[in-house]
Formats: sequence, structure tokens, C-alpha cells
Amino acid sequence: MNVRIALIGAGRMGATLAHHLAFSLEMADFVAIADPNPENATGLAQKLGVAAVYSDYQEMLARSDLDAVVIVTPTNTHVEVIQAAAAAGKHIFTEKPLALTLAGCDEAIAAVEAAGVKMQVGFMRHFDPAYMAAKQKIDEGAIGRPVMFKSTGRDPWRTSLEYARRENSGGLIADMGAHDFDLARWLMGDEVVRVYSEGECLVFPELKEVGDIDNAVVNLKFANEAVGNVDLSRNAIYGYDIRTEIIGSEGSLMVGGLQQTPVLLLKPNNVSHDTIPGFMARFATAYAAELRAFVTAVAEDRPVAVDGRDARAVTAIGVAATRSLDEGRPVWLSEIG
Amino acid sequence: MNVRIALIGAGRMGATLAHHLAFSLEMADFVAIADPNPENATGLAQKLGVAAVYSDYQEMLARSDLDAVVIVTPTNTHVEVIQAAAAAGKHIFTEKPLALTLAGCDEAIAAVEAAGVKMQVGFMRHFDPAYMAAKQKIDEGAIGRPVMFKSTGRDPWRTSLEYARRENSGGLIADMGAHDFDLARWLMGDEVVRVYSEGECLVFPELKEVGDIDNAVVNLKFANEAVGNVDLSRNAIYGYDIRTEIIGSEGSLMVGGLQQTPVLLLKPNNVSHDTIPGFMARFATAYAAELRAFVTAVAEDRPVAVDGRDARAVTAIGVAATRSLDEGRPVWLSEIG
Amino acid sequence: MNVRIALIGAGRMGATLAHHLAFSLEMADFVAIADPNPENATGLAQKLGVAAVYSDYQEMLARSDLDAVVIVTPTNTHVEVIQAAAAAGKHIFTEKPLALTLAGCDEAIAAVEAAGVKMQVGFMRHFDPAYMAAKQKIDEGAIGRPVMFKSTGRDPWRTSLEYARRENSGGLIADMGAHDFDLARWLMGDEVVRVYSEGECLVFPELKEVGDIDNAVVNLKFANEAVGNVDLSRNAIYGYDIRTEIIGSEGSLMVGGLQQTPVLLLKPNNVSHDTIPGFMARFATAYAAELRAFVTAVAEDRPVAVDGRDARAVTAIGVAATRSLDEGRPVWLSEIG
Amino acid sequence: MNVRIALIGAGRMGATLAHHLAFSLEMADFVAIADPNPENATGLAQKLGVAAVYSDYQEMLARSDLDAVVIVTPTNTHVEVIQAAAAAGKHIFTEKPLALTLAGCDEAIAAVEAAGVKMQVGFMRHFDPAYMAAKQKIDEGAIGRPVMFKSTGRDPWRTSLEYARRENSGGLIADMGAHDFDLARWLMGDEVVRVYSEGECLVFPELKEVGDIDNAVVNLKFANEAVGNVDLSRNAIYGYDIRTEIIGSEGSLMVGGLQQTPVLLLKPNNVSHDTIPGFMARFATAYAAELRAFVTAVAEDRPVAVDGRDARAVTAIGVAATRSLDEGRPVWLSEIG
Repeated sequence: MNVRIALIGAGRMGATLAHHLAFSLEMADFVAIADPNPENATGLAQKLGVAAVYSDYQEMLARSDLDAVVIVTPTNTHVEVIQAAAAAGKHIFTEKPLALTLAGCDEAIAAVEAAGVKMQVGFMRHFDPAYMAAKQKIDEGAIGRPVMFKSTGRDPWRTSLEYARRENSGGLIADMGAHDFDLARWLMGDEVVRVYSEGECLVFPELKEVGDIDNAVVNLKFANEAVGNVDLSRNAIYGYDIRTEIIGSEGSLMVGGLQQTPVLLLKPNNVSHDTIPGFMARFATAYAAELRAFVTAVAEDRPVAVDGRDARAVTAIGVAATRSLDEGRPVWLSEIG
Repeated sequence: MNVRIALIGAGRMGATLAHHLAFSLEMADFVAIADPNPENATGLAQKLGVAAVYSDYQEMLARSDLDAVVIVTPTNTHVEVIQAAAAAGKHIFTEKPLALTLAGCDEAIAAVEAAGVKMQVGFMRHFDPAYMAAKQKIDEGAIGRPVMFKSTGRDPWRTSLEYARRENSGGLIADMGAHDFDLARWLMGDEVVRVYSEGECLVFPELKEVGDIDNAVVNLKFANEAVGNVDLSRNAIYGYDIRTEIIGSEGSLMVGGLQQTPVLLLKPNNVSHDTIPGFMARFATAYAAELRAFVTAVAEDRPVAVDGRDARAVTAIGVAATRSLDEGRPVWLSEIG
Repeated sequence: MNVRIALIGAGRMGATLAHHLAFSLEMADFVAIADPNPENATGLAQKLGVAAVYSDYQEMLARSDLDAVVIVTPTNTHVEVIQAAAAAGKHIFTEKPLALTLAGCDEAIAAVEAAGVKMQVGFMRHFDPAYMAAKQKIDEGAIGRPVMFKSTGRDPWRTSLEYARRENSGGLIADMGAHDFDLARWLMGDEVVRVYSEGECLVFPELKEVGDIDNAVVNLKFANEAVGNVDLSRNAIYGYDIRTEIIGSEGSLMVGGLQQTPVLLLKPNNVSHDTIPGFMARFATAYAAELRAFVTAVAEDRPVAVDGRDARAVTAIGVAATRSLDEGRPVWLSEIG
Repeated sequence: MNVRIALIGAGRMGATLAHHLAFSLEMADFVAIADPNPENATGLAQKLGVAAVYSDYQEMLARSDLDAVVIVTPTNTHVEVIQAAAAAGKHIFTEKPLALTLAGCDEAIAAVEAAGVKMQVGFMRHFDPAYMAAKQKIDEGAIGRPVMFKSTGRDPWRTSLEYARRENSGGLIADMGAHDFDLARWLMGDEVVRVYSEGECLVFPELKEVGDIDNAVVNLKFANEAVGNVDLSRNAIYGYDIRTEIIGSEGSLMVGGLQQTPVLLLKPNNVSHDTIPGFMARFATAYAAELRAFVTAVAEDRPVAVDGRDARAVTAIGVAATRSLDEGRPVWLSEIG
């Protein structure tokens, strides 16, 4: 039996996920799209052959012939949409972050658990072939005990000023660092217990005016005493740069690279290649694979790969690391609940 | 208006192209599958939601509501299927090679031209992002005048003995070299005029019994006097290895690489990574893109990217290079028509 | 006129520098070796054709026909040997670190300045072709304003327990981090003003017994507000791993790599290469070049490339970062003078 | 007992080898330099501390206190100098090629064998760490049976027109190909039995006027039936490009790379690094190591690594491959003696 699925939020990222829902998932029937902007929803529905369009997602949730929803709305609406979807008995795939606050995460988790539905959060790196291979090698013991975690997350462009505000994105550390904090927990198989951040607005002074920074380094301490560091930058103007290292007692792993296509141009005393333009290009297969995993989990009634409690833990690290930046001191995760 | 398209041949490669027809091409309606083995066709049709199945492709060609066909039948049937499809007024996408003989190529081209339909041949590297980027750089003049062409085509496994026979595949040089000979013409923007081959059966003695070899090097001379070399091997047991270099008067290009996923495992005095498992993994996006290009050419009535005359020229190089191997002398393309 | 030069300390590193003094420096006459162990000194002198050997370096310093000394004694003797050499009017090249304490650094600097001799400290990365190229590109403005500094320093082996003690090496952060802190100042063209360290003893429990750790991450804050991170590990069992990144407003630089010789071994689904065995292999040319630079500076009476004040600043960062580890808080450089 | 050694020929390459003789070889006493141009010899002798200088090498050979000579004279003088040195009972290190003709090779070999002296020929790649590692892996069986040999030899500049003449260098194929033909024999552990060349003058028309070409590909057939290809170019304007592959039945090897220093510059959509400027930079350690090996072989009375018969075999391949180019047909090595 196929999973009847609908999309809530037909913006840029919504359109990407919608494409995968429409074309890559044999086990899903993509039946409806909801978006307050009817042009977004209608255009996408026509292009992808989706039958129904709604400007009010609540109306769509009322349909009994709907099994699951994919939520790609602005972050500050995640909790209320999740609550509504859970109350309607729909399984939920939501884009990350679950919420910017721990209170929001807790409300979402409570709603989902009360309704007995599944919720997967869109930390898509769990479905990237490279990160999956790394995770498998760690689990096989190829590097022994992981003792240091290093991760780089750098964007080639400045985000919009509106998005950069703390209330919208959580700021550089919570926003861009979320994927790295997620990797830290997943790959190290451990919890972060203390963080310390250094960060500044160095390249885009306009970010400072909205309270954000553009470069940061965050030290991590894990429960099992391993250490780590995440660096984040908005000015990797060379290209999208996502790399992770796990140093183990018996070997190490490096995940990621800088090159998009395998072409070298050789000119006098210069060999050059391209870079990765952005996260869509880097993680194209992962976006399809995370939806496939969600649909499969729903269809076969199995646990999802990244659930609400995972997402809450990621938010907690981001909140703590941001507080560290604000207060100029190491912050224990236990301080923030 | 969408292009109504059908598949002829539902084997392994047919299934791959069928998947792209079903899921990746908004401008195509995938309406039917023909295969003499009804299980192949039916299974694929059900999986992909294709309405009609035929065991006799001729019957399918009789449908008036069909615009185009994708031919993925055994090579020795290409000409007759193309003739039938052309006679039925259908546009044609055919897997490479067009035919193993120049006579076969000529018959197919004549049928297509008489019927006034389009025919694209499946030299999919024209649609690989890396080779496309290289071609664009050459056309922009980034490397000046191309003066040397080098290409490597190596498979990680031995082909079946049945397929290896000259009458089925054309033998190692014509079969595996076809893509390299195609690249030679396309990237150098020139015609090959003379070839010389060295080759032997060195690793798989059973190939010798069916008249084939497993390793070869083929020197090329171009009309504009540029030189080239293609090396072919069936025992690249490390992985699928496809690389090309174009040396120019003002720079050079290298296309291709050995790594599938960007993961390094670091062990004592050893850094290792994976390899590319096979052509499906390496050229996954190219297979989708070539079909998209064909459907677009049909829908918009524009020329196809790789036509019958291109395919004939590739066959001619393969025939000449194989004759060179047999006769132990350089062979001019002009000798073989 | 050649510089008449002598070596003080004929241990393993002393022997390496001695080889360069004997064979690579046309402008130097290598005239004497002093070492309390007469076997060390005599063996080396015979092998390299050095005329005089001393068990007491003070005696050697009394020679009037000696222009300069190269000090490769245990760190805790650096200050007294420097004071003696300066008092004798000899120019000084000393291995890093200058001293483990700021007081020691100050005494050494005072002695040198009072005597009016030159002193160069052995931060040899300033003379490595890769780091030199990076520095030049930064100075040319190729990456705009440097805003983030990242550096990795990892050894493939555990140091001796005796050396690991704080009183002998300064501990992991001060000892192994010294080169990275030196790079931080040099490449960023700025001073570190605040540090925060996380570190643990995770792989070699015996290190804990002598008060040391084996893995650490150190966040840096610079005077111009740039940020940075240094990671250090004693269990890079794969090989010596020294890499540095400088992220700038208009580009970035990566220095360093993992491969010693350009040889790839390709086996089924596995491409592998070797690693760099240790610092001697990685920085072989730099050790020769730093001595050449010192001899040239003496011969031509020009300033040395890395002087006592540079070395003091590096010690200060190490002391602050170690205090941060001990006290679990960010430490300002201004706190420690 | 040290080997008393002298240099014959103090040009550019002679000066390079002289530097190694003077500074890197503890077992050699560098006692004299001969060069018809007294300025060359005197300048070099003063710089390196060599006691005696001769304008007539015959006079130098008359010294009884001389054990060996290093011959770095123009190729067309090699045979006569070798004959004189052998007649004087001196061991001989000669730059490659031994001679441009087989007759010349035979005369030199006969003189050496008659005199009972040792002769090593300067195919220095045998002493390059990367090629040595590859050879060792092949000998250990890491790649099973070698079945294909591929080698690239490309210079970043056009040679002088005078040198390009057949009578001076042997032309592109014999001259630049010599190192690749040497590698072919050494790494494959086999003899080349047939060659076929394609080549043209495509970039530097002035080379055509002196009878030379600038790009060539040479197919190889080995006695054990393995196949191979060498490509040669004078217009690798990007940098010195020396790479070799050996494809085996159970694995493969790639030797060589394009990068001189491990520095990446990252600019918008572009990652670039430097290239290798020339053979001196690429093979610096090999030049020192080959002389060390020669001196050791003399001192310990052991066979040299690359002798006259090896060098003759390399010349034979070059002669055959050049004849193939001239006559437009495959040429058997047996044809040319």
C-alpha cells in the first residue's frame, strides 16, 4: 500500500522535496500541496501532476485519505504545523530545525508522541552516501574509538539579513551549525556536554546590524570526554565547503571534498578545478533518500532515522553554543535543560 | 505537447532508461513497453506505471498515438528495429552502437532519412557534466588548439564470453573503444584518419577461445594531424576507470577520476578511498540527460546531439582499429569506406 | 667571509641540523661540536669532518674564532646556554621553544639584546616552500582580509612519558601547538588575544599519569577580531598530519597534505597511497633553509626571520591555552603578561 | 676508503651533479673538474672547493689518484670520452643516453668490458622514491602480472632548435622517450619487441624546419605479449608532467602527479594549485641518489643499477620508434639489431 503524502510549504526547498516526492518515490502517492501563496502551490502542482492544492493547510489536514505530510514552512511555524498534523493523525516529515527553542522542540515532541504518529526531521546528511559510508566504517570499528570530531560548514554567500536575525534562524551558530552538531552526535555516538564559541562579524558589516556574525569556531566536549571543533563561515566565496573528520584511536576518517565535477584545467603553472555550488548540488541524492526512508518507515511501520529527540538535542547544542558566544564562557548543555 | 514514447527492449539497460523515462522527464509520456520476454516487459510496466505491454514490437509500432521509441535491443537487431520504427514514422533513440558494420549503419541512416524522423544514438558521455564542461572549455579556446587526445576505458570485470564474440560485440576494441572514439571526434572537433592497434589476451585465457582480447592500445591520427591514443582493458579490477586528456597548445584538460564517494580512511601509513563500481554509477545523470535531450529535440523539432552519421563514424574507427589488430599494420579510415 | 659556527647539543635533532651545517651551507664553516656526552659529539664530528669537539660548551664559547652557535639542547637549558652564548658575543640559533615560561623568554631576550647579538628561533615552517607560498599569497592580497585560521598538528606516535611532563615539554598544547601558534601570528599578521582549550587523555592512559593529555582543540581570538582553531593529537596513527587553512574575505588557502610519495596502488574497490612518516620528512628542506637564513642574516648583518620576541609570543599563547585547559575557562593573553 | 671522483663537463647538468658530488656523498672525494671552457670549470671548482681544474679531460684521466669519472658532456661525445676513461681504468658514470646509435652503444660497452671497469648510465628514475616504491610493489606481486604499461613524458617548453636536430638529440621520440622506454623495461620486467609511432609538429612550426616534431604517441608490444603506450609532448605549457601507470592482473599502479607544493588557493568557483616546474625539481633527490648508488657500487665492488646493456636497449627502442614514425609502419626491434 502506498503512502498518501502531501506537502506543506511550496517555497524553494519545498519545490525540491516535491520533485523527489513526485518522481523518485514509487511507494508514495503525492496527493496535495498546501501553501498560503496559491501561485506557489498551483504552479508546482501543475508541473508535478499533483491533484489538489490548498491555501490553508488545516483544510488539507482534514482529509481522511492522507497518511503523511512533509513540512517545509518557515522555522517559526514548525511547532504549530506539527501540532496540527499530529492532531490530525498524520505522520510527519519536517525540515530542520525542529524548533529554535527547547520549549518549541518539547511541544512538538509531545504532540507527536501523544498522537502516536511518526516524525522524521530533515537532517539529510544521514542519507548522504559519503556520510553513510563513514558511519558504517566507524560502526565496524575501522578507526577504533573516536576521540576527536572536526567539522567545517561554510556557505559561499551571505544569507538574507531578515533570515539572519536570531528570531528567524537562531543566528549563524545555531543555524549553520545544526548539521555539524547533528553529525557530532551521530558519528561520535555520543552526546555533547559542553561548548565554547568564538565568533565575529568580520566580512559583512550589515550582519552585525541585525545581530548576527559571519565566522565562528565552536569547541565541543563530549560525555565520553572526546573533544571536537566546528567552524562556520558565511564567506567561503570559493564554494560550498562541507567537510568532517573523525580522529580515532586506530585510524581516522575524512568526509567531503571541494570538487563538483572531475575536470582539471591545466594552464601555465596552474591546475584548477571547480567547486561545489551549494547544498542542493552537494546533497541532491540525500534529499531524495531521506524522503524515501521516511516513506518506507511509514509504510513498514518502522522507526524513523532521525526523530524529534535527535532534533531537540541538536537545537540544545546550538542554543548552548550561542549562549557561549553571548556570555564569553564555556556553557554546559546541562545549564539549558 | 508531450512526447508519447515507448521502450523496445526491457533488459537491464532498458530498465535503467525506462526508469528515467518514467520519473525524470516531464515532457515525455511513457506509454508502452515491448519485449519478446513478457515477464521483463510486464514487470517493468507494473513497477513504473506504464499502461501497455507488447511482446511484438511491430504491433506496438502500429499505434498511431506513439511519437517516439527508445531501442535497447541486442546490437545485432538494431538495424531491423530502426528500419521498422522509421517506416512507422516514429522518432528513434537507439542505444549505441548503431551497428557493428558500416553497411548496417548505412541501412539504418538511409531508413531514418527516407522517413524524415529523428534518430539519436546513445553516446551518453555528451551529456555527462564533466565531459560537457570540458567540451565547453575547448570551444571557448581555453586550451588553444587541441593537439593530442588520450582516453582510458577500463572495465572492472570480464564481459560474458558470448558477448565477447566479434559477431555480437565487435570485440574489445570496437565495443569498449566506441565511447573513446566518440569522444575523440567530439572533443577534438576532427576526424580520425588512421589507426594502429596492439592488443592481446593476457588475463582471461577463455576470451582467446572466443576470439577476443582483454587489453589493447590504439594509436590515432587525426585529419588535422593531431595524434591520440586510447587504452582499453577488461581487467581494471580496482574499479571502473574512465579518464580522458586533451593536450592543447595553450593548456590541457583532464576529465574523470577514480573516486566514487568523498571519504578517506586513514590507517597506519595508508590513506585509501573507494572506486567507481561501474558505468551505471559513473554516468547515472548522463543517461537521464540524454533522454531528456532526445525528448526535447523531438518536442521542439530540433536536431539531435549525436546522430546516425556520428555513430557511423564511430563504428568506422572501431572497424579500422580491429582490422589493424588483425593485420598488424596501420589502417587508414579511407580503406574501409 | 664565512660564518664560523658551532653546534651545542649532538642528539637526534642536533645531528640533523649538523648535517645541514656540514653539507648545505657554503657560507658557514662548521668548526666545533659540544655535547656533554663525548660519544655523541665525537661520532658526529668524525662523520661530518668537524675539527673540534667539546664536552663543556662553555669552553667552546671561549674561542675567539667562533661567530655563532646552534643550540639544540634540552628545552630547560635553553635560557642558560643562550645567556652564556650571548655573553660570549656569539650569534645564536636556538631550537624552539625559546623557553617554557615567559620569565625564561624574557631572560633570554634580555641577554641577547644586552650583548647585541642576533638570535633566531627554530620555527622552521617559515622556511617551508608551501607555507612560504601561502604567506606570499596572503601578503599579495590573494584572499583579501584573513578572518579565520585553522591548523592541525598531529603526530603519529606518543611522545616519551618523560618528555610529556609539563616541566619538560610544557604539555601537549604548549609543545605541539607551538608551531600552530607561530603560524597563527605569522599568517594572520595579528596577535592572539584570547584562547579556550578542550583536551583529554583518551588513547594513552599512561600520559594521564604524568599529567598530560593526547587530544586537544584550542579556540583562538585575534586582536583584529578574527577567530581560529588549532587541533592537536598524539594518535594520528596514520601518519604525520600538518595542515593549515586561512579563510579570507576574498578567497582562502589550504596548506599541507597527507601524501609522501606520488604513488597510488589500485586494488579492488580501493585506491591507496602512503602518508608522511614524520616531521623530519615533511620539513627536510625547511631545516636546511632556516639555517641558511640564519647564516645569511649573520653574514650580511640583517635581521633574523623569527626572533626572540616572536618566540616569546608563541610561548605566551601556549601558556594561556594550557591555563585555559586547567581552569576550564577562556584565558586572555593579557592575563599572563 | 673513499672514491676519488672527477667531473667531465661543467655545463648546467654537470653543475647539478657536481653539487651532489661535493655535498651529499660522504664516500666520495670530489677531486677534479674538466671542461674545455675554463670559466665553467674554474667557477664551479671554486664554489664547491674542488682542488684541480683541467681544460683537457685526457690530461685529467692520466692522474693515477683518480678512481672514477662522471661524464656530462654532449651526447655525441659520450662514446669517445667513455673509451678514454675506460682505457685509463676509471669507473664511469655517464649521463643518458649512452649513445644515439646502437653502434655507438656497442663501442662504449666493448671499451668498458675490455677495461673491466664499471659503467652506470644516468637513468635517474630508478632512484626516485616514487618509482622505487612502484618497482618494489610490482616485485612483491601487489598487482599480479603487469599487462599494460602507460607513460607520459611532457615538457613545459620547447627545446632549442639546435638540440632538436636528429644528429644531436635523436629527435623527440628517442630523446624524451628514453626515460619512458627505460621505465617500460624496468617496471614491466620485460623487453619491448615492436613499436609503432604517430607524431607531428603541431605547435612549434620552427621544429619542423630542423626535422623534429613536438607531439607523439608510441605503441609498445612486449616479449611477453603485454602492450603499452608512451605519449610525448613539448607543449605541456602547464608544467613538467611525468606520470606512469602499470595495469596488472590483480591491481594497478599510478606513479607521479602534477603538484609541486601542497598549497591550494580557493577563489570563487575555482580551486588551483601550482605545477612542477621541470625535471630538476621533480627528480632532485634522484640525481643525488643515483650518484650515491654509483659511488657505493664502486666502493663496494658491486654491480651498478643501470648498465651499458640497459642503456643500449633503451637506445634501440628509441631508434625503432623513430624509424616507425619515418616509415609509417610498425617496426620490430629485431630489425634494428
